[in-house]
Amino acid sequence: MTKWVYSFGPEKTEGRGAMKNLLGGKGANLAEMAFLGLPVPPGFTISTEVCTFFYEKGSTYPPDLVAQVDEAIAALNRQTGHVFGDVANPLLVSVRSGARASMPGMMDTVLNLGLNDETVKTLAKTSGDERFAYDSYRRFIQMYSNVVLELDHDAFEEILEALKDKKGLHLDTDLSAADWREIIVDFKAAVQKAIGKPFPQNPRDQLWGAIGAVFGSWMNARAITYRRLNDIPADWGTAVNVQAMVFGNMGDTSATGVAFTRNPSTGENKLYGEFLVNAQGEDVVAGIRTPQNITEEARIAAGSDKPSLETVMPEVFRQFVATTKLLEKHYRDLQDMEFTVERGKLWMLQTRNGKRTARAALRVAVEMASEGLLTKEEAIARIEPATLDQLLHPTIDPSVKRKPFASGLPASPGAACGEIVFTADEAEALQAAGHKVLLVRVETSPEDIHGMHAAEGILTTRGGMTSHAAVVARGMGKPCVAGAGGIRIDYAKQTMQAGGVTLKKGDVITIDGAAGQVLVGAVPMVKPEMTGEFATLMTWADGVRRMRVRANAETPLDARTARGFGAEGIGLCRTEHMFFEGERIVAMREMILSETEEGRRAALAKLLPMQRQDFTDLFEIMTGLPVTIRLLDPPLHEFLPHTDAEIAEVSKGMGVPADRLRARANELHEFNPMLGFRGVRLAVRYPEIAEMQARAIFEGAVEASRKTGAPVIAEVMIPVTFGRPEVDMVKAIIVATAEAVAKETGVKVPYTVGTMIELPRAALQAGEIAKTAEFFSFGTNDLTQTTLGVSRDDAASFLGIYVQKGLLPTDPFVSIDTVGVGEMIKIAVERGRAERPGMKMGICGEHGGDPASISFCESVKLDYVSCSPFRVPIARLAAAQAALGQSGANRTA
Amino acid sequence: MTKWVYSFGPEKTEGRGAMKNLLGGKGANLAEMAFLGLPVPPGFTISTEVCTFFYEKGSTYPPDLVAQVDEAIAALNRQTGHVFGDVANPLLVSVRSGARASMPGMMDTVLNLGLNDETVKTLAKTSGDERFAYDSYRRFIQMYSNVVLELDHDAFEEILEALKDKKGLHLDTDLSAADWREIIVDFKAAVQKAIGKPFPQNPRDQLWGAIGAVFGSWMNARAITYRRLNDIPADWGTAVNVQAMVFGNMGDTSATGVAFTRNPSTGENKLYGEFLVNAQGEDVVAGIRTPQNITEEARIAAGSDKPSLETVMPEVFRQFVATTKLLEKHYRDLQDMEFTVERGKLWMLQTRNGKRTARAALRVAVEMASEGLLTKEEAIARIEPATLDQLLHPTIDPSVKRKPFASGLPASPGAACGEIVFTADEAEALQAAGHKVLLVRVETSPEDIHGMHAAEGILTTRGGMTSHAAVVARGMGKPCVAGAGGIRIDYAKQTMQAGGVTLKKGDVITIDGAAGQVLVGAVPMVKPEMTGEFATLMTWADGVRRMRVRANAETPLDARTARGFGAEGIGLCRTEHMFFEGERIVAMREMILSETEEGRRAALAKLLPMQRQDFTDLFEIMTGLPVTIRLLDPPLHEFLPHTDAEIAEVSKGMGVPADRLRARANELHEFNPMLGFRGVRLAVRYPEIAEMQARAIFEGAVEASRKTGAPVIAEVMIPVTFGRPEVDMVKAIIVATAEAVAKETGVKVPYTVGTMIELPRAALQAGEIAKTAEFFSFGTNDLTQTTLGVSRDDAASFLGIYVQKGLLPTDPFVSIDTVGVGEMIKIAVERGRAERPGMKMGICGEHGGDPASISFCESVKLDYVSCSPFRVPIARLAAAQAALGQSGANRTA
Repeated sequence: MTKWVYSFGPEKTEGRGAMKNLLGGKGANLAEMAFLGLPVPPGFTISTEVCTFFYEKGSTYPPDLVAQVDEAIAALNRQTGHVFGDVANPLLVSVRSGARASMPGMMDTVLNLGLNDETVKTLAKTSGDERFAYDSYRRFIQMYSNVVLELDHDAFEEILEALKDKKGLHLDTDLSAADWREIIVDFKAAVQKAIGKPFPQNPRDQLWGAIGAVFGSWMNARAITYRRLNDIPADWGTAVNVQAMVFGNMGDTSATGVAFTRNPSTGENKLYGEFLVNAQGEDVVAGIRTPQNITEEARIAAGSDKPSLETVMPEVFRQFVATTKLLEKHYRDLQDMEFTVERGKLWMLQTRNGKRTARAALRVAVEMASEGLLTKEEAIARIEPATLDQLLHPTIDPSVKRKPFASGLPASPGAACGEIVFTADEAEALQAAGHKVLLVRVETSPEDIHGMHAAEGILTTRGGMTSHAAVVARGMGKPCVAGAGGIRIDYAKQTMQAGGVTLKKGDVITIDGAAGQVLVGAVPMVKPEMTGEFATLMTWADGVRRMRVRANAETPLDARTARGFGAEGIGLCRTEHMFFEGERIVAMREMILSETEEGRRAALAKLLPMQRQDFTDLFEIMTGLPVTIRLLDPPLHEFLPHTDAEIAEVSKGMGVPADRLRARANELHEFNPMLGFRGVRLAVRYPEIAEMQARAIFEGAVEASRKTGAPVIAEVMIPVTFGRPEVDMVKAIIVATAEAVAKETGVKVPYTVGTMIELPRAALQAGEIAKTAEFFSFGTNDLTQTTLGVSRDDAASFLGIYVQKGLLPTDPFVSIDTVGVGEMIKIAVERGRAERPGMKMGICGEHGGDPASISFCESVKLDYVSCSPFRVPIARLAAAQAALGQSGANRTA
Repeated sequence: MTKWVYSFGPEKTEGRGAMKNLLGGKGANLAEMAFLGLPVPPGFTISTEVCTFFYEKGSTYPPDLVAQVDEAIAALNRQTGHVFGDVANPLLVSVRSGARASMPGMMDTVLNLGLNDETVKTLAKTSGDERFAYDSYRRFIQMYSNVVLELDHDAFEEILEALKDKKGLHLDTDLSAADWREIIVDFKAAVQKAIGKPFPQNPRDQLWGAIGAVFGSWMNARAITYRRLNDIPADWGTAVNVQAMVFGNMGDTSATGVAFTRNPSTGENKLYGEFLVNAQGEDVVAGIRTPQNITEEARIAAGSDKPSLETVMPEVFRQFVATTKLLEKHYRDLQDMEFTVERGKLWMLQTRNGKRTARAALRVAVEMASEGLLTKEEAIARIEPATLDQLLHPTIDPSVKRKPFASGLPASPGAACGEIVFTADEAEALQAAGHKVLLVRVETSPEDIHGMHAAEGILTTRGGMTSHAAVVARGMGKPCVAGAGGIRIDYAKQTMQAGGVTLKKGDVITIDGAAGQVLVGAVPMVKPEMTGEFATLMTWADGVRRMRVRANAETPLDARTARGFGAEGIGLCRTEHMFFEGERIVAMREMILSETEEGRRAALAKLLPMQRQDFTDLFEIMTGLPVTIRLLDPPLHEFLPHTDAEIAEVSKGMGVPADRLRARANELHEFNPMLGFRGVRLAVRYPEIAEMQARAIFEGAVEASRKTGAPVIAEVMIPVTFGRPEVDMVKAIIVATAEAVAKETGVKVPYTVGTMIELPRAALQAGEIAKTAEFFSFGTNDLTQTTLGVSRDDAASFLGIYVQKGLLPTDPFVSIDTVGVGEMIKIAVERGRAERPGMKMGICGEHGGDPASISFCESVKLDYVSCSPFRVPIARLAAAQAALGQSGANRTA
């Protein structure tokens, strides 16, 4: 005989916490608490196997289910001293669904089941509170009609409102027992009318109706959609929990409350919670009465004049404290609990791992590990790496109620506040004058860099997560909201407008780059703190991870920030980013627009000393650590002069007529710049560019090693390759230049030459390429673009729908598309290392800071990940978790 | 003892034609002719192994080489009756290099070797022509100094010019024996001055000097470059040929000439050639004297009054005709021969397979097969498929001397002639009025289609081989020259200008789309003829090929053309091409620019009947053959209105303000349209589009099958997919629509649903996709773009350099990049067929008409190739050759 029903309670508890698959999350948790001997109202769980049976056998139950339920109810009667269905001494129960994971769309809860026209009278008598009894009955009718009989909720609300109008009453609490009785008559009439038969009076019929409704809801449309989106198999099924009712609203010796074993906001190890005397659970959250503190310490700290639980119910308090300690120790995590006191007796209704802020999560994990409650490895695993972002940037005070002016993409995390400016020059000028400014542009371009540096944050109305503004802001660690399409900017009038509200230059706004929101005025913020726990956890993470973590950085500021965050080198120095500012962009444009090698060499000669200084600085800051420098990979169009003024400036600089420049710029225009004249293709056509850069690298390295006395570890990287011949050609230039510089300076710089793998053909040709290249760095942004044929900048119009409809599991620009891009990487790793055993391989690009992608990198045994400086701590933690996941997998294998 | 030297001649011939590796091409051929008993001047070949030895052993010869050469020279002396180095009876020889394949950069020829201050006197005496002897000597000094002593050619020309000036002479032929003697003195003095010693007088020294120069030239820069570019290994080496001199300029019983066994221009099976009495080889081509015909028949046909060889030397003629017959039969191909008659004796100097026109190649191959000289398979293999293009379009008369006005890309083959017009509307109007026009535009866009239809040909000054103009023109089979950047168009003045010449509207020009040339005026053309041989060869090809050949076609005209060329179905109907014209583009724009589903459905409702009619026509024309219809894959930007007038038109059509339209158009603007909102992504976001198209397909199929009484074979193809879920989703729409139409009409149309494989991820996911898709069609244009990360439209700035520098073996948009794109295809074929055995797979896109790519398709066992209608015959032939290559490979395995 199959066991379908599992009882829990003081008499016997047949389930355990580990039986989630069979009993669902809620049922298993209740069983676990009962098994621990905690005061849980007794009850039973109908297993998920009944649900599976129900759907396999045409919505029928196993033949022996009724007998097992009857037996479980008999046990309930014994334990509570009440009798289910008995008029004189009725047992009331709650019925709840409970799948393995909490699942929106499922039937939720029916309370007070067992009440009918007769038992309500008994309840009124035994509780001594007639109003309580009839209110409970009408709630039951309302809830049951809605979730079991599937009647419209509004119909009942209308009846209630009509009575209130008639009597001139406003709040539900104004209604008397007599009023509720009147309403119950109307409710029952409404049910009769809707379903053609009376509201069920027999508690057994009520119970089976509720059980059927739970199972039925497993296949409703919302639940099916949710399962599809979350990859939950339909055959998991749901369980049903039936539990004796307890009441916190039976007078002044009754109470109800919620509590956390530690402060969920700060993580402080102090019991934290609230309760109300003579109240039901929903009253605590409803906010009509002010809840009381649980501990005296908290009451004093809050300056509350309402007595604490510790004072009003000292014995219950003592018992509750002991229970919370036991639960936290048992579950080895911060617990979020619900409890009820019925006439002086404590009942535990729920415990679960509590939600908490990133700050609290960190403190709790580190302290629990220090207390010996967790191992360091477990503490590491407890922190969601992405949440560290909250700790690295200022954030909007969580207590603030937000009324966004407009929304855009959360392009770079952190909050920033400042006066609106619409041009980079103004941003710079006002900042120099001591103002805090926020740069607002339709979109940004390389010429805006100085303004972005000057601004507290950046807001654009066009562009995606990888637009110029977004990428540069993330690199700078500045908050950014990008593509806030609802805002209309009028540069001429110096205003911006959204939803009928107009703001002008100088008005103060606040942006939340993590939420993508724009708020009017100066909104209070919380400053980041690299607390002691943060440092501790990072040290532990560093102890277990296998992969190195480097940063993508070009400027000394970025490099220092990265090193401060624990970066173990630079994994990607995008040299083209070094040419966005001031006179450099002018020289750069001269170089790009030159029609002759002579002209290019003249422009390159101007760039050489600047570039050399760049590298000297970087090598110095990164002393002892490897620095990977990528040769020029400009999206050419980002450098081209667009406006007449810009063209005039370049024209002057080059001594070439504006018309010829315009024509040359037109020649260089590309239809698909992502697939255009980029990367190594530039070096193939104009080898003098690679030569200048190689010279700047090696001369910079010599200079830096002279200053620091330590050797530089230089890794020269060739971008956008698709085959070995290109790498051969450019490596030859690099080697020749290295030799020339060594001869000239007498200093030999140790270096390697490698390549990006960012095109499918490069991945396929990895074996050939590895004959020349000494390392690989996966450029997964471009590899994703080419493997999927999706331009990041243009994906907004369809990619969201793909994720939403489940055509892609996740945004491939956020987490590596493992089956497509991931297979490309696997192929390249295998072929590369087959040719060059132990070949060093890493990932740069945005995925290097994404925990899911870092886990993938661990699985294919990359040597390092490289990400923007502000994501370095996230990557360190994620790499540690990935290493643990790996070794965990090894342990069980 | 290794044999280094191989003699040929009447006494003994040690080599054979098959020994090319050892004797080089020329040496092997001479040996073969000698072996056949033909009158070849005797000589010997120093093998390529000597060359290898020479480079392996520090520029030394094998020790026994001298003895073997001496022995070979002794044999020469015996056979010629002259003695090398003997003053009284000197033997003169020529020295030539000869690698396996003819190779530019190698030392070419030294004639008359053996002459010196003494032997020249004997030659003067024996020839009875002093001038001839001294002219021969000075030529020898000049040639030897240049190629062996490496002295500058100009120094000798200056001496010659100085003497002519002094004597007031103009032509070399004006110089007397005395003049040449004077020049020889100066030549020798110049050599003495340059090399510090006298010009070598000893014939043995001369010979070894020439031999050393041949071997030395194997490693000169030009030869090395050529080998690298053509993948010729350095260790192949070259041979050296030493051969007794014969002279055609020893009086009226001497002569020299060239001949082809058949007419190399028409292929007619008649001996074709020219000769001159008392002349040297170079005189025949120099054009100073008019050559004479070889046969009487040819003389009469040419109306020449100069006697034929048949008349002046009947015995020699008889012998020569027999020799040519023997040679053609022996080599089983049209022979190109050189001969010399020295004092009544015929000498054969060279025979090789003759170059010929496409027309001639076809006729020769077919006739030789009919004569039993070749098998049909050999005849098929003889024709270079690409040359058939010449036979399918009018071409410029090959006898015309061209003076191009400008050059561009050979975007679509064939020649066209017409009046210049600068707008599509004018093109249409003038054509309607009976003019022949040539449409000249900076670039074309969908709105120009009607003008392109009206024009004889298209000329653009911007855009590449796959620009709109090029693609559309090829599809229409219209000649097109694209991207003629040297031309400047002034639309306002209605002129175009290049190289200082200005042409205006109405001026007549001719374009050669196969050569990429623009010519002024009406240049004579040759009309294409689908001759009997063409049809015969195609039938033979169809008999041996395995792959099917389909066409890419949308219009009834294209479809009929394709069927006429033997297409076995449509492999790609690009439905977006159907919306470029007239009111369709307006409705299409309404659809694209609609912000609501309602708006889109309204526009789609306008398109449905047009689209249905399109499909009805196609299905009717292709009765009995499969038609693959690709769902909409618009490069959206090609449809967007750009000018204010266009926006106003769409605005009126949609009843939407121009401002909002402009804003919407801006929203739809894409940075990288190739990687943007295309293909199936449109159907995912706007399923109603796929629904409309599916309805048009099935209703069109029902209509066509009602008209023809034959069932339609419809293949619905989903573009730009990268995973199975998309295919699932769109297939469901197609299937539902098919069922709806079947229900409405009572007719069930047999159909399959497949997908393009044109993104790397689709190739990797082919196994998954094949669970839903019933066929694959490889879109190798896009697959090349994404696998290599190269945009066709932007590749002009670097791809040429890649091919030129050998970084890519060939333009990957012309022939499939086998190691990159090819591996992608292989992966997809394997994974797709592993999931769905025997799955139908083909290729569409430009590569489908490229012979090298077709050969690749055969190797991976695709079922069909699909190409533009005018390339169908090429593809049929190439597919046949590929099939033969395959079985050939099997035979040798």
